Amino acid sequence: MTRDPLPTPGAIPHAKLSLAERTRALGRTGCTIWLTGLPASGKSTIALAIEDRLLAAKRPALILDGDSLRHGLSAGLSFDAVGRAEAVRRAGEAALLLAESGTIAIASLVSPSRAERDRVRARHAAAGLAFIEVFVDAPLAVVQQRDPKGLYKKALAGEIASFTGVSDPYEPPLTSEVHVRTDELSVELCAANIIASIRV
Amino acid sequence: MTRDPLPTPGAIPHAKLSLAERTRALGRTGCTIWLTGLPASGKSTIALAIEDRLLAAKRPALILDGDSLRHGLSAGLSFDAVGRAEAVRRAGEAALLLAESGTIAIASLVSPSRAERDRVRARHAAAGLAFIEVFVDAPLAVVQQRDPKGLYKKALAGEIASFTGVSDPYEPPLTSEVHVRTDELSVELCAANIIASIRV
Repeated sequence: MTRDPLPTPGAIPHAKLSLAERTRALGRTGCTIWLTGLPASGKSTIALAIEDRLLAAKRPALILDGDSLRHGLSAGLSFDAVGRAEAVRRAGEAALLLAESGTIAIASLVSPSRAERDRVRARHAAAGLAFIEVFVDAPLAVVQQRDPKGLYKKALAGEIASFTGVSDPYEPPLTSEVHVRTDELSVELCAANIIASIRV
Repeated sequence: MTRDPLPTPGAIPHAKLSLAERTRALGRTGCTIWLTGLPASGKSTIALAIEDRLLAAKRPALILDGDSLRHGLSAGLSFDAVGRAEAVRRAGEAALLLAESGTIAIASLVSPSRAERDRVRARHAAAGLAFIEVFVDAPLAVVQQRDPKGLYKKALAGEIASFTGVSDPYEPPLTSEVHVRTDELSVELCAANIIASIRV
């Protein structure tokens, strides 16, 4: 007994539409904007501001929020290192599909691991799609002060087993396409800087 | 020690853009066309024909092919019932995101389980997005005759442990939005019937 690696093939092996053909048909190309940073650094707020501006300009865009995906694509995953890595991977694959379709995917995830982010970047490079990594940066003291959900407080009190910025490390990007300091710039300026980096 | 169910929240809990606002901004709404049927029934061929027509009309569309997803979003999943159910679920979630972004997702998967397809349908209904289930239908004798990759032959010889249409059941839709007989209609006519069912 062997088990075919792909037991349910389509009827006919087919050449997929190339990205160039797709771009020609729609007159545009998608890409991924990947917001990474500590909890409470401002990723969600900036993601909303970017999406708002892009839609106002009639550019299709969709936020992939790490927390929201936990209720859908990543439902059931654990919160340990393995589960969190898989959640980052799936968000990356979803972003890739959106970008391929011509949409600007705006991923908003802590995604603390440099290696995991780089794997998502490599997947985009292999598909010929732009991956714009944005370091949403604010000092730890500032984000712990913001702490809108009281999670840093709980983590510092030892009530949360693993929490990025307290018990777990955050690895900042070494060469991100954009670096915004949310304790120094307004949301609008951060969003404008990021949108200016879109080349497609 | 407690573990917060969402240990990495965004900075601020935020209202998501409604589908109505998104539709207003882009001037269109996405949906999902879900092609289900036996291996070699013609799903991939029809998916390509639909995508081609939609892109020619400048409607964003993207194929989610069950086999291709096994190399990306569903990589690493088993081919047993649990793994295949999860592959259908993830394809459904990816389709949902594409549809939400304004794209027409064209999912092409055997997806033999009625209950699993209905779960994807329910997810779309909850999001207010159209789910067009298409039964890509050809008699078993015909698809076994086509057998472009020789998989039915292998399955009938007992060389593939589980194969829909041989050892594993296929549950045809009871009330699909579209039913195309690929042994009676041309690919172009099948595609035209399906596209005519798109209301958004």
